[in-house]
Amino acid sequence: MALVVQKYGGSSVADASCIKRVAQRIVATKKAGNDVVVIVSAMGDTTDELLDLAEQVSPLPPGRELDMLLTSGERISMALLAMAIANLGHEARSFTGSQAGVITDSTHGKARIIDVTPSRIREAIDQGRIAIVAGFQGVSQDTKDITTLGRGGSDTTAVALAAALQADVCEIYTDVDGVFTADPRIVSAARQIPRISYDEMMEMAACGSKILHLRCVEYARRFDLPIHVRSSFSTKEGTWVVSDPYTEGTEMEQPIISGVAHDRSEAKITVVGVPDKVGEAASIFKTLADAEINIDMIVQNVSAAATGRTDISFTLPTADAQTALTSLKKIQAQIGYESLLFDDQIGKVSLIGAGMRSHPGVTATFFAALADVGVNIEMISTSEIRISVIVGQDGVDAAVTAAHRAFSLDADQVEAVVYGGSGR
Amino acid sequence: MALVVQKYGGSSVADASCIKRVAQRIVATKKAGNDVVVIVSAMGDTTDELLDLAEQVSPLPPGRELDMLLTSGERISMALLAMAIANLGHEARSFTGSQAGVITDSTHGKARIIDVTPSRIREAIDQGRIAIVAGFQGVSQDTKDITTLGRGGSDTTAVALAAALQADVCEIYTDVDGVFTADPRIVSAARQIPRISYDEMMEMAACGSKILHLRCVEYARRFDLPIHVRSSFSTKEGTWVVSDPYTEGTEMEQPIISGVAHDRSEAKITVVGVPDKVGEAASIFKTLADAEINIDMIVQNVSAAATGRTDISFTLPTADAQTALTSLKKIQAQIGYESLLFDDQIGKVSLIGAGMRSHPGVTATFFAALADVGVNIEMISTSEIRISVIVGQDGVDAAVTAAHRAFSLDADQVEAVVYGGSGR
Repeated sequence: MALVVQKYGGSSVADASCIKRVAQRIVATKKAGNDVVVIVSAMGDTTDELLDLAEQVSPLPPGRELDMLLTSGERISMALLAMAIANLGHEARSFTGSQAGVITDSTHGKARIIDVTPSRIREAIDQGRIAIVAGFQGVSQDTKDITTLGRGGSDTTAVALAAALQADVCEIYTDVDGVFTADPRIVSAARQIPRISYDEMMEMAACGSKILHLRCVEYARRFDLPIHVRSSFSTKEGTWVVSDPYTEGTEMEQPIISGVAHDRSEAKITVVGVPDKVGEAASIFKTLADAEINIDMIVQNVSAAATGRTDISFTLPTADAQTALTSLKKIQAQIGYESLLFDDQIGKVSLIGAGMRSHPGVTATFFAALADVGVNIEMISTSEIRISVIVGQDGVDAAVTAAHRAFSLDADQVEAVVYGGSGR
Repeated sequence: MALVVQKYGGSSVADASCIKRVAQRIVATKKAGNDVVVIVSAMGDTTDELLDLAEQVSPLPPGRELDMLLTSGERISMALLAMAIANLGHEARSFTGSQAGVITDSTHGKARIIDVTPSRIREAIDQGRIAIVAGFQGVSQDTKDITTLGRGGSDTTAVALAAALQADVCEIYTDVDGVFTADPRIVSAARQIPRISYDEMMEMAACGSKILHLRCVEYARRFDLPIHVRSSFSTKEGTWVVSDPYTEGTEMEQPIISGVAHDRSEAKITVVGVPDKVGEAASIFKTLADAEINIDMIVQNVSAAATGRTDISFTLPTADAQTALTSLKKIQAQIGYESLLFDDQIGKVSLIGAGMRSHPGVTATFFAALADVGVNIEMISTSEIRISVIVGQDGVDAAVTAAHRAFSLDADQVEAVVYGGSGR
């Protein structure tokens, strides 16, 4: 008998009929001989409706009260799901984050999980019941106030509970079949990835893949907990995210590139004419850190000998751009830079693959593919298993498509790579 | 400095603008130098909407899960109210029933309060904060599951918390100015009652007055906690419910009759031809008690000597009639009664007044008033401070109006009674 943790997102429980369908799937898992713990998000648009209500009442609601408000969303969906399961003749018990023992810090709106003490969940399972747990929420260790975990919170709840319960797998249900080699809306030949490593999945999440949040993959990696990303509309195998996808009973050879990710949500700021003195760059990035802005890529040109000045470019979430520009304006006199340039018409295209470690020439192939379709590269950043480039936003689709084909990821090319063992 | 507990019902917090208006009233109470604890119901139709969702998912939802679902309603309203107060520059903290220390038994849907341990509320007050508490809900002492208190639950929460905090007053806000001598929709000359005793108010509630639930008045009486029923739409004094309304600094003489209540929600069942043997009536009412049916009035005719049989009539909530008839059918052979009659076209009209203790002839005046307007009396029941009659449903309005006038309760008559000291 296995312990299976399943997580269903808001679109999987959008209305009564969705909830009944999910209940059937849960009961089927239970009937197959598994213990089942389910993490559920708020129904469809509930969170947006609650935020809208809050906005009508207060332009700047206190975080504690906003968390109290928003957590009612999962309370509704989890109770309804438990009822639907009861209808099918199985006993289910719903639990709030607090009741499930999800202990967090007190940072309302984006609390971090400190500990998970799921004694009531364990008890429910031991009594043969299906436990339904509210995702996205916890209770503060210090203040005993209700908290929310912020973006990716329900996935993180699922992985954290699965780890604390030493579950065999954490199944994340979504509206697609799994993780793809590229966004199928851009690359029609994109394929579902059967297995991928935590490291690659983290790079995918950091580079714009929205299927799993970075935070939840990090958590799973720390506890070596297998994640199975799959569709709530079919019973097909989805994508397994595991520590070493190519040795655990699979016959596949590791591909060079696992997937191509893209991200249109970033903007680029260039600080022009920074005096080339020790510590100037540090001042700039300390200012941005103080404003709690996450910087992604950074490029500094070689300084021009004639002027003793250099340009520093960086990318950041477009949503943070206004704050960043305002902060930088304030230190213009102190730093003595000349001007600021801003560009939000950019996109990031990333190749991710642990296989590129042992395959030289990946960068050359990637850049040649982009050149062939006339896409210009503005910035470059690399890790051991990733190459990212910044291109013009209107070149993103062409770049993703070209890279996908250049690394033989298209559906019609894949046989050759997987079974042919070509070392290209 | 006083400690004021205020309770606002669903219609007082129906939307964002209502919530802001209530917030202003709360802040005004705080600014006047009081400590304030607020109990709030779910917004307007929220509970009905949640029940509708539950019905779509399950025809017979488990009580535990239904309570989990419904309690999200107050969670929403209390968080929004706390935000609205924060907007006005005062600090508010919202608390669920569980957080507020409302400890109940485990009877989901109609839990009874066992204990109130409001340490977090006390702490919030001591820190100068306004505490907002979810009405209608608590946490089970045994199972630690979330419970709801059932009908009148929010009023009961308010009174119970006020008692536990030793508040100076529990203000119950509603959409009318207070308790009236009769329903103003029937009797246009009905007046607001300035002060009334717990005993009278309990009789009013038991006899169809919907303004306060019997349960909440019982609770207040036990702890001698003054209730102030008043409108959330004005700052006028409402009705004070206290232990002895006519000695506490008022100059009023006690009226004979405090008010006329009516109730159209009952039905009458007659068990025809019951053998006049010891224990037959007991069997009938034990059967009904086993089916958890609350009987109101009972009349047994003198048995006819010729047949040795009698008829037993009783009234009960119309909603329970089907269950009662089914239960009685099952014991027909055992009891040997002849048939069952059912009538839901009845109404109950009740005179309530502690003053009738010292005034003989109240019954005669009441019955004469009904006879004058051609209303026939079907059943009668009395207590020391109440006379109730069952009449045909189409006679209710006439009976209420006639009784109101016969006991000089009409607005144009009242001066004579209150100040004239007429002992009629």
